[in-house]
Amino acid sequence: MTMNLEYLFEPRGVIVTGVSSHPGKFGFVALHNILSCGYKGRVFAFGREEATVLEQKVITSFDSIPANEADLMILCTPVGANEELLRKASEKGVKAVFCAAGGYSEIGDEGLKAEKRLVTLAAELDLVLVGPNGQGVVSPPAGLCAQIVAPYAPKGRIAVVSQSGNFVSSFLNYANQTGIGISRSVSAGNAAATEIIDFLEWFSIDPATDVALCYIEGLEKGRDFFERIKEITKKLPIVLVKGGITVGGQRAAASHTGSLASDSKIFEGMTRQAGVTRAPDIESAFEIAATFATQPLPNGSRTLVLTTAGGWGVVAADAISQSSELVLAPLPNDLKETINKLLPPRWSRNNPVDLAGGETRDTIPELLSVASKHPEIDSIIQLGLGIQGNTANLVRTGKFYPEHGLERIVNFHERQEKRYAEASIEVSLTSGKPVLVASELAATQPNNPMVKTIRDSGRLCYISANRAVSALNHLVRYSGWRNQSN
Amino acid sequence: MTMNLEYLFEPRGVIVTGVSSHPGKFGFVALHNILSCGYKGRVFAFGREEATVLEQKVITSFDSIPANEADLMILCTPVGANEELLRKASEKGVKAVFCAAGGYSEIGDEGLKAEKRLVTLAAELDLVLVGPNGQGVVSPPAGLCAQIVAPYAPKGRIAVVSQSGNFVSSFLNYANQTGIGISRSVSAGNAAATEIIDFLEWFSIDPATDVALCYIEGLEKGRDFFERIKEITKKLPIVLVKGGITVGGQRAAASHTGSLASDSKIFEGMTRQAGVTRAPDIESAFEIAATFATQPLPNGSRTLVLTTAGGWGVVAADAISQSSELVLAPLPNDLKETINKLLPPRWSRNNPVDLAGGETRDTIPELLSVASKHPEIDSIIQLGLGIQGNTANLVRTGKFYPEHGLERIVNFHERQEKRYAEASIEVSLTSGKPVLVASELAATQPNNPMVKTIRDSGRLCYISANRAVSALNHLVRYSGWRNQSN
Repeated sequence: MTMNLEYLFEPRGVIVTGVSSHPGKFGFVALHNILSCGYKGRVFAFGREEATVLEQKVITSFDSIPANEADLMILCTPVGANEELLRKASEKGVKAVFCAAGGYSEIGDEGLKAEKRLVTLAAELDLVLVGPNGQGVVSPPAGLCAQIVAPYAPKGRIAVVSQSGNFVSSFLNYANQTGIGISRSVSAGNAAATEIIDFLEWFSIDPATDVALCYIEGLEKGRDFFERIKEITKKLPIVLVKGGITVGGQRAAASHTGSLASDSKIFEGMTRQAGVTRAPDIESAFEIAATFATQPLPNGSRTLVLTTAGGWGVVAADAISQSSELVLAPLPNDLKETINKLLPPRWSRNNPVDLAGGETRDTIPELLSVASKHPEIDSIIQLGLGIQGNTANLVRTGKFYPEHGLERIVNFHERQEKRYAEASIEVSLTSGKPVLVASELAATQPNNPMVKTIRDSGRLCYISANRAVSALNHLVRYSGWRNQSN
Repeated sequence: MTMNLEYLFEPRGVIVTGVSSHPGKFGFVALHNILSCGYKGRVFAFGREEATVLEQKVITSFDSIPANEADLMILCTPVGANEELLRKASEKGVKAVFCAAGGYSEIGDEGLKAEKRLVTLAAELDLVLVGPNGQGVVSPPAGLCAQIVAPYAPKGRIAVVSQSGNFVSSFLNYANQTGIGISRSVSAGNAAATEIIDFLEWFSIDPATDVALCYIEGLEKGRDFFERIKEITKKLPIVLVKGGITVGGQRAAASHTGSLASDSKIFEGMTRQAGVTRAPDIESAFEIAATFATQPLPNGSRTLVLTTAGGWGVVAADAISQSSELVLAPLPNDLKETINKLLPPRWSRNNPVDLAGGETRDTIPELLSVASKHPEIDSIIQLGLGIQGNTANLVRTGKFYPEHGLERIVNFHERQEKRYAEASIEVSLTSGKPVLVASELAATQPNNPMVKTIRDSGRLCYISANRAVSALNHLVRYSGWRNQSN
C-alpha cells in the first residue's frame, strides 16, 4: 500500500530540533531555511537552551507545543536524544519525521543498532520516518525548504528523490537555472524506513507531480522494487540515474551508502522492461525530466527538423538517425508543396527543412504552424533560432549603438526572436505535439530574447540539437511503452 | 607547403567592399564589427555611393586606397563585381581575400563557374582566397572581427575552422561564456581555394594557437587530408566534429555544403590513426578543446578523484571505469597513510577519496598538494566544491541576512570556496598535472565564488564529473598517441 507522505510534504506545522544560535549547526540552518524561504505554517524551534534564534523563541520542552499543530519534525539532534523526541512528538500529534542527524548505520555497527531502534519505534508510533542522515525535504507548493543545504527551488512539476543528498541539490540548482520547477524533493539518507520506491509510489498519486527524477545507488529488495516500479510507471514517468554500474563505482557506492553490488545488466534489463527512463548522467537526467514536465507526450517517432542553420540541421539528422526511437519523418508531398510556396527554391526540399536564408519576416511562424498540424509529423525540433538576437547583442553593446539606424535593426532582430519563440510554444500547445528549440545560446546567453521567451513560457531551451534529440527520444520510448502497458 | 595565412589573421589594414548605409547588409555589418570590436589597423570602406557610414568615409574607387596599407579584403559585393575587385586589390598590395558574398557553387552550375573563375584569378594574382559564402574571420590577437555575424570572442589559445559558419558562432559563444578564448576563427564557406586542412596546417605553425577546433562535413580529397593531418597532430591537438556520419546526416550535408557521402567507419578509423580527437557534439568539442588549451597534458592514465560529495564520487568512478583510457589510480599506501593523518576514520580509504564531511579548514588544500605530488597519480578530478558557496548564496539572499551572525558565516563559506579553487589551480601549475574541477554550479550559478575563481584563472569548471572525465580521457589518449608518434 502506498505510504501516506502528505504530512511530510504538506505539513500544517513543523518542529525543528537541535536549534541553537550557532549558524553552522544543522538545527540553525534548517530553521533558517524554513523561515527564510516563506513557509506559511507554524514553526517550532526546539533546543537545549532558551534563546531567541532568527527572531524565533527556542523552546526547551515539548509542553510548550500545542497538540496537533505540527505534522512534521526535522531532527537535527544527536542519536542519543532522538528516540525520546519521537515519543514526545507523537504525543503532540506529529505524523512524519525527517531525521537529518547522522551517526546511524553510515558509521558502523553501533549506529546501525540505533537506526534499527529508531525504525522500530517510529513504526510503533505510526510515524513516517525519513532518513536518517538525509539533507532534508523541500516542497515548493507548501513553501517548505526544510533542509540543511541549498538551494530552495521554484515550484513546478518534477518530484525528486535521491540516495545522495548532493544530487538533490544538483537537480534543484538546475531548476533554479532553467526555471523548470520542483513539486517535491527529498534526500532519502540511509532510507532506513522510507525507501526510494515508497517516495516514487507516493509521487504517482501526488496531484502536484508530473514526473519523478531519481538517483539510486543500491537496492536491498530488488524484486519488490521492480514489482512496484512497473505499476508506478504506468501512471508517472520516472527518470532514473543509477550510481555504481561498474566495479569501481560499486566500490565507491559501498563506501558512500553501504550499497551492495548489483548486476548492472540485470538492473538495466529490468528497468527497461518496467518502462523506467534511464539517464546516463545528472545533467541529462534533469533535461529529460524537464522535458516530461513541459512537453506533451509524442504520438509517434516521426520527427521534423526545422533549421535556419545548415550545420545544426546536419548534426540533428545524424543524432536522429543514431537514436533508438526517432526517425526523420519523410517529408510529405503536400507539406513540401506548401513549403515551396513559402520559400525560394534553394531550401533543402527535405527533412531537415533547411531554410537556407530564404526566410522573410513571417516564414518561420507560418512554417511551424503548417508543419505542426500535419498528421504525418509527430514532433518538431527547431534549430538556428537566437542568431539574430546574438547579432543584436553584439550591436547593442558596440560602440556605435544606438546611432546609424542601429537601434531600429536591433529592435527588429529582438522582436523577431521573440516571435519565433512564441510561435514554437503556441504551435506546440495548439497541436498537442512536442516542439523542442535548441541553441547553445541557452547556456551562453540566457538573456537572448529567444532563450528568455522560451524560459519565461516555462519550457526548456536545449543547449544543442543532440540534447533535444536525446530528450525527445526518451519521451517517444516512454510514450510507446505506456501505450502498450495500459 | 603550408599556406601563408598571416595576412588573413594579422592584416595591417582591411578593405571592406559592398558598404552602404543599410544596417542589414553584409558590407555594413562587416564594417560595423571590424570598427566596433577594436581593430587597430587601417580600415577602408568601399561602396558604390559616396557616403559616410559608421563615421567612416565610403570610397568608390580603389584610387583612394594607398598601396600596401591593406593586406586583407572582405568581399561583400555581388558575384559580378568580385573579379574586378580582386585585380584592383592586388594592385594595391592586398594579399588575402575573404569572400563573404554568396551566389557561388552553393546555388548551382552558374555559381560554380563563377567560383572557378574566382579561384583561378586569385591563384594568378597570388592571393589567398577564403570562402566564398563564408561568415568571416576573427582574430582576437589582432583585434579583428571581420565577420557578418556575432559574436566576437576573448583572446585565447583555441583556433577554430568550420565548414558551417554557425558552428564558428557556437564555439565563439562558448568562448564568451567560459572565458576560454580564441586565437583565430574562420568560416571556410565553400572552401573553394583554401580548405579546412590548409587552415589546420597554418594553425600548427601559429604561435598564438595551442589547439585546433574543427567542424567538417565532407572531404573531396580524403587521402591528401589524412596524409597532411597526421603530420599536424604531431605538433597540435585537433578536436574535430564530423557532420554527416549517418545516411540522414549525409543527405542534409549534401544539401548544406554539397558534401559527398563518405564512409563514416573509414573516416573514424583514419582520424583515430592520425591522432585526431573526435568529439561527438559541439558542446563537448568546445569543452575538450578548452581542456587542451588550459590543462597540461597528462603523463598517464592514473586518475585520482577527490570528493566532498559521495554521490559525485560514485558517478565519477563509474565514468572513469567506463572510459577508454582512464583508470582509477589504486590508492598508494603512503598516500593513504598521509590522508589518514588529515581525516577522521570515516573517509572512504579508497579512490575516489571521499572526505565524508571529515574535512576541516585546511584539509582540501593539503590533500590536493600531497596527492598532486605523488608519482603514481597522473591527474586529479575534484568534486563537491561550490556547495558551501551555494549555501552562502541562499543565506545571503535570504530575509535574515546579514544579522544573526550570518554575514560572518557567509564570508567564511565564500572565502573557503575561493581557497579551494585557488588550491586546485596552484597544485596543477606546481605539479604540471591536470586538475579538473567539476560542479553543476558552473552552469547554474556562474557567480559562485568557486566557479568564478576557476573562470578568472582562465580554466574551465566542468558541469559534471562525467564531462570532466570525458575531456580528460581525450587528453590522455592524445598524449599517448603523440608520445608514440614523435
